[in-house]
Amino acid sequence: MSLSASSRSQVPPFAVMDILARVDELRAAGRDVVSLCAGEPSGGAPSAVSAKAAEIHASGRALTYTPALGTAELRAAIAGHYRRWYGLDVDPARVAVTTGSSGAFLLGFLAAFEVGDRVALARPGYPAYRNILAALGCHVVEVDCGPETRYQPTPELLDAAAREHGPLAGLVLASPANPTGTMVSRTELAAIADWCSDHAARLVSDEIYHGIAYPEAPLDEHSPRGVCAWELDPESIVISSFSKYWGMTGWRLGWMLLPEELVPAVDALAGNVALCPPAPSQLAAIEAFSPGAYAEADAWVAQYAETRRTLLGSLGALGWGPAAPADGAFYLYAELGGHLERFGDSREYCRALLEAEGVALVPGTDFDARAGHRSVRLSFAAGPAAVSAAVERILRFQSA
Amino acid sequence: MSLSASSRSQVPPFAVMDILARVDELRAAGRDVVSLCAGEPSGGAPSAVSAKAAEIHASGRALTYTPALGTAELRAAIAGHYRRWYGLDVDPARVAVTTGSSGAFLLGFLAAFEVGDRVALARPGYPAYRNILAALGCHVVEVDCGPETRYQPTPELLDAAAREHGPLAGLVLASPANPTGTMVSRTELAAIADWCSDHAARLVSDEIYHGIAYPEAPLDEHSPRGVCAWELDPESIVISSFSKYWGMTGWRLGWMLLPEELVPAVDALAGNVALCPPAPSQLAAIEAFSPGAYAEADAWVAQYAETRRTLLGSLGALGWGPAAPADGAFYLYAELGGHLERFGDSREYCRALLEAEGVALVPGTDFDARAGHRSVRLSFAAGPAAVSAAVERILRFQSA
Repeated sequence: MSLSASSRSQVPPFAVMDILARVDELRAAGRDVVSLCAGEPSGGAPSAVSAKAAEIHASGRALTYTPALGTAELRAAIAGHYRRWYGLDVDPARVAVTTGSSGAFLLGFLAAFEVGDRVALARPGYPAYRNILAALGCHVVEVDCGPETRYQPTPELLDAAAREHGPLAGLVLASPANPTGTMVSRTELAAIADWCSDHAARLVSDEIYHGIAYPEAPLDEHSPRGVCAWELDPESIVISSFSKYWGMTGWRLGWMLLPEELVPAVDALAGNVALCPPAPSQLAAIEAFSPGAYAEADAWVAQYAETRRTLLGSLGALGWGPAAPADGAFYLYAELGGHLERFGDSREYCRALLEAEGVALVPGTDFDARAGHRSVRLSFAAGPAAVSAAVERILRFQSA
Repeated sequence: MSLSASSRSQVPPFAVMDILARVDELRAAGRDVVSLCAGEPSGGAPSAVSAKAAEIHASGRALTYTPALGTAELRAAIAGHYRRWYGLDVDPARVAVTTGSSGAFLLGFLAAFEVGDRVALARPGYPAYRNILAALGCHVVEVDCGPETRYQPTPELLDAAAREHGPLAGLVLASPANPTGTMVSRTELAAIADWCSDHAARLVSDEIYHGIAYPEAPLDEHSPRGVCAWELDPESIVISSFSKYWGMTGWRLGWMLLPEELVPAVDALAGNVALCPPAPSQLAAIEAFSPGAYAEADAWVAQYAETRRTLLGSLGALGWGPAAPADGAFYLYAELGGHLERFGDSREYCRALLEAEGVALVPGTDFDARAGHRSVRLSFAAGPAAVSAAVERILRFQSA
């Protein structure tokens, strides 16, 4: 017998994996490495969430399965969050708690799309969208988005994609986006939602970085945290998470807002595919909606903003450009400009930078197979000291 | 625009969902209901695990992403468990920690099977196998297994299935099985593994109930906890979990042992589909392998054994039969015998029993679309008092 892995499991390798492995090696060898790779806050959960989790476990209570779509209490608390941040009245029955936003993408894609359906997404973009859709047998249509549209899709780009590839069954939109950090305005989101509605395409709106936005972001008074797709298109699937704003990546807890016709499908799929999201995380996450937890999360956002200012102030000296507008999230995505000539592409630049100066960045090739060889992603979630140290080392590296 | 749910999300509805909803209604109305539906221990995690979790959260440490296949410490501890229980030398690099065994089935099926592949499983069986495979585009071949093969597949049954449906790409085998509790002996497992090897079919061995086995089970001295498929077939995928033996259902933590050629595929898929299993659960689950935790889990197994004896002793009075040998797990799967005539089928029997006497069982139709209308599944994880009360009420119901 000779069995092999399925063709659908042949996920393209990420350059960041080699970089992270090399970071570990260098650190094990005693090198001081500044890693700006991780797309996660380092501060951890709000203290009220950790305290609640400690209390639950100390009580020794049995943590059994919850309903597949999450506890009634947490679904109601999430609905309350939409009233608080967006003035939206969300029925808790339309909230599905999931195992991270990863679980939401998996269940949402399964419920909304057939094998063979064409689903569009922006390039550059978060590679897991593409890889989950491909593993589920969907046809991924990558829409090249550059500086002229602030790295976001537009109705014109979607028209062109549909002309080239055929009708689209869906679109994944991320605002703030990873790796670019760019956000769409209410007007832009409305135009995209209209396009989806006119073309019977399901809009999947990734809003996991909502709440982490900076003064230059195209926001409005009505929704200072980001515009929620449900403000404009109640047929869309809205996906969010406790991972980023609340700093709870390892807890694996996210959620979806679902159009009514998808609720039974997601409920049944979730019961089979996941049983339920982690119970301890669900019970503790209730505290994420307390005033103290919002205040702690906002303090982290203020720190990201400060780090971002430092970083943007260094861009001229770094000689990079152009950079995507870092409206939100904690990423800077920038072309390497004149420095590319010396290294050929961003993978080689990142490799050499790590060896020479112990600074780890992610090459753009992980987010964009076409044009990412010119760019790097830098996460400023690591904080001001790490970013300042990194900039100093990069300047030395580039002038060496 | 009129969008609908995908055809692959049309999971057949489970009767148990209606029953559980009715249990909630009756309890809300003040009725005393004995539910023997849940396939989960009620005692909770071993105390060392809960204490470790409380300590982690009390420290307020940031719980960030772990590697996609789990922490190195937990993978090594799981490998140690195979040495302890099975005398097997497992390389920790071949252990993939997953988000419950649900996560293992999803990733294992994605990595091993293509869209359109035929995968066999026993009927009656755990419905999520069928529903996950179908959602992933696989063709499910249900092999009818009755009392003559102790509800387990055999090489002869697999030959017949392959003749009828075409070559099989895989087989999901569960021992102890849900809903029947039956286990395969070492000889039987070896014959099935040989068949799979001879027919280039991937064996997926569900061993999540290992450790919960009773004196009559077909076990041997070498592996008193259950025979692990890796003792016989290193090309198989072995799936297990912290949910059942250790009573940690809500923690969503399981694992797989993977053939070498599937490790990179599962690693890449896991990083995209799940990112990582819940970090707090991983950090605390290390304590599941402490002597005290094994002792607590074994005490629960002793209680299940006592409850099972009580229940089997009542079978004559209940007038049911035949019942599957409850070798392991905490399920009794029995035909209703002469009582069927009065109710027509097991769904109606369960409905009427719940209304009349407040006892909740799962009708066999949830596990077997062909013959399940004659059977019920009763979980004795609820403990001796609940089971004794249920038997008394069922006797009254049947004689009414």
